Amino acid sequence: MNRNWKENYCVATYRLHDEKADFEKKAQGIAVGLTVGSWTDLPQAQKAEMEKHLGQVVSVEVHDQPGKERYADIRIAYPDLNFSRDIPALLVTAFGKLSMDGRIKLLDLEVSDRFREGFNGPKFGLDGVRKLLGIPDRPLLMSIFKSVIGHNLPELREQFYQQALGGVDLIKDDEILFENPLTPLEKRVRACMEAAAEAEQKTGQKLLYAVNLTGPTSQLKQQAAKAIEAGANALLFNVLAYGFDVLHELAQDPDISVPIAAHPAVAGALYPSPHYGIAAPLLLGKLMRLAGADLVLFPSPYGSVVMPKEENMAIKEALLQPDEHLKRCFPVPSAGIHPGLVPWILRDFGTEVIVNAGGGVHGHPGGAAAGGRAFRQAIDAVLRGEDLTQAAASQPELAEAIRLWGAKQ
Amino acid sequence: MNRNWKENYCVATYRLHDEKADFEKKAQGIAVGLTVGSWTDLPQAQKAEMEKHLGQVVSVEVHDQPGKERYADIRIAYPDLNFSRDIPALLVTAFGKLSMDGRIKLLDLEVSDRFREGFNGPKFGLDGVRKLLGIPDRPLLMSIFKSVIGHNLPELREQFYQQALGGVDLIKDDEILFENPLTPLEKRVRACMEAAAEAEQKTGQKLLYAVNLTGPTSQLKQQAAKAIEAGANALLFNVLAYGFDVLHELAQDPDISVPIAAHPAVAGALYPSPHYGIAAPLLLGKLMRLAGADLVLFPSPYGSVVMPKEENMAIKEALLQPDEHLKRCFPVPSAGIHPGLVPWILRDFGTEVIVNAGGGVHGHPGGAAAGGRAFRQAIDAVLRGEDLTQAAASQPELAEAIRLWGAKQ
Ligand SMILES: [Mg+2]
Ligand SMILES: [Mg+2]
Repeated sequence: MNRNWKENYCVATYRLHDEKADFEKKAQGIAVGLTVGSWTDLPQAQKAEMEKHLGQVVSVEVHDQPGKERYADIRIAYPDLNFSRDIPALLVTAFGKLSMDGRIKLLDLEVSDRFREGFNGPKFGLDGVRKLLGIPDRPLLMSIFKSVIGHNLPELREQFYQQALGGVDLIKDDEILFENPLTPLEKRVRACMEAAAEAEQKTGQKLLYAVNLTGPTSQLKQQAAKAIEAGANALLFNVLAYGFDVLHELAQDPDISVPIAAHPAVAGALYPSPHYGIAAPLLLGKLMRLAGADLVLFPSPYGSVVMPKEENMAIKEALLQPDEHLKRCFPVPSAGIHPGLVPWILRDFGTEVIVNAGGGVHGHPGGAAAGGRAFRQAIDAVLRGEDLTQAAASQPELAEAIRLWGAKQ
Repeated sequence: MNRNWKENYCVATYRLHDEKADFEKKAQGIAVGLTVGSWTDLPQAQKAEMEKHLGQVVSVEVHDQPGKERYADIRIAYPDLNFSRDIPALLVTAFGKLSMDGRIKLLDLEVSDRFREGFNGPKFGLDGVRKLLGIPDRPLLMSIFKSVIGHNLPELREQFYQQALGGVDLIKDDEILFENPLTPLEKRVRACMEAAAEAEQKTGQKLLYAVNLTGPTSQLKQQAAKAIEAGANALLFNVLAYGFDVLHELAQDPDISVPIAAHPAVAGALYPSPHYGIAAPLLLGKLMRLAGADLVLFPSPYGSVVMPKEENMAIKEALLQPDEHLKRCFPVPSAGIHPGLVPWILRDFGTEVIVNAGGGVHGHPGGAAAGGRAFRQAIDAVLRGEDLTQAAASQPELAEAIRLWGAKQ
């Protein structure tokens, strides 16, 4: 069949591991079973009526090499007529019951044009975030609070101020900081945005503070409104703990007038197995963009929490590739990043990336402000085509960072 | 340390696979890293202040046998002071970043008394569902629509009527039936509840119709209200496509005056890997009950979608074990069930179970009504201590089912 799937079919790609399955038959079973239920027994007249609801096998690619696990990549096209235009409906259709049916992993979802019409994607996107910060082209720098739990407002404010002094472009809450009596949302936002203004006097630089949006689902919009009212200019959100549709509804709400950074918390329960789950480029790439994240954090291939390089590049691709309808998202490879890794990050991601560090900022021997400066120096050096050791000769903060953590070229 | 964890710590149990890790050190790293961030460097005065926020290693049990994968079961107690009383906060704390840190699976969460105070659990629970149906003790029978997509209201109504005639106690929508022009929610509920009333004239039996609650998250309550207004007396909900907190908010809403059946769609992306994800008894057992599901569907160990028997029994335990504060949930082992399996289901689950079938009802040679009767006959036979072949001698529907699908003893 030579259909134009893109118009009104959503195409799912699965990897099935099985030592002996008839994958062609299995594919047919999925296409029928997850749509019209039965097909071959239907009277001809009913077939004509039902065909528009019938799933279609797009391709079956069997990999069967001696000494390796046997598997097949199967692509099924689901008529979008069968489900509503929301991510829960798409997931339940394409990977609801099927997720429990043997060793099967969902690798990709290509949504139809009609399905996509239900989505605006990122409200700001990469370019919108750059515009807010007034930085048209260089890689951005984000830093994360060090310790937050059990700390009071003045301590958090001071941490924020030190980070801001170092010239970071964004500061994000720790994702495990919830509403709490020591540093409640509105007071925290006010204290930190005050510190931001104070630092701006010295650095001449704007920054975005992504405050963690938490609590009961039905109150998230109200919490976001409170944070924005208090001065927050970005939000951090643990998307997978709430569901993609919650992000989608937040992102499309016109009252939420600030970018949303998607945190990958809990994602490791879904993507790393070769046999089960949902592939990282879909989970942390395509679906995050569709649902409307402006920035997406994910484990980098460089640091402490490691994701294979090709998965990282596929996430990047999903966030950045041109799309007529959806703005690009800023990729934020995270975890274990220090200034010495900047050449690798920029080699792999180019300039459309946010360099994100916690320990690599706070652990600097000269403190967090020096830590931020070391990163900015590393970024500028790479942009000038200098190597880091060379650049470090005239930049003491970078030199100290490299002494402590080393440097990649 | 001999604390009473139950009072104000939530205890997570993880299984970590690693060929050479120092698991004791890893456990300490988790306990500190996911709570106060750093500990050994803190000045003594600050330690006194911070200790109540510090995670604690409860136990580390290393399994290291030649020829087998090396792993450890690690239990960490998290002070509930650190997070808000909602499931997203608990998951992000205990398995947010950590989920991405190597081969690690979340096996269990024991919530503190204080955390649990934020939850009422099931509104009806097993006993409430029995009361609604007026059936105090026998195993219940649920059936599922056969084909639904592309069918119109009269067709669905007729399917419903035939199922109801067979004496089933509950009928559930297919989880892939979303809001659609052929059988929109309110019209579907009205047509089916009419069919239920008509069948009741003949069977003298009440039944619950669990209608699929779908659409944008923020509109679910309103959709539920519409369904209830139209006569729905139960709801079906794809919990994992939306998030546990959404179920929690639905379940605790006093306006949602009907039981909620949790469907496990998408769960297979999370539980089956031995190395990653969230264990089935936690995902489909404990968390569903905490969040307020009255019935929980999960893949049975008997049929087409297979889950290991011990996991099934652990889900059952999580749903049924006595709890001072949370009502019991009805376990609904599902997929591939036919009347011949009833002796096994009742052997494993006892009488507190819902026998649930789709193909095993509709595929009966005598049609769906005969299919339902065959199941009821099988259940009654097992309760009388008769074997099925013996019972089938005087019960033609059961006899036909056994001829087609066989019977276990
Ligand atoms: Mg963090
Ligand atoms: Mg189904």
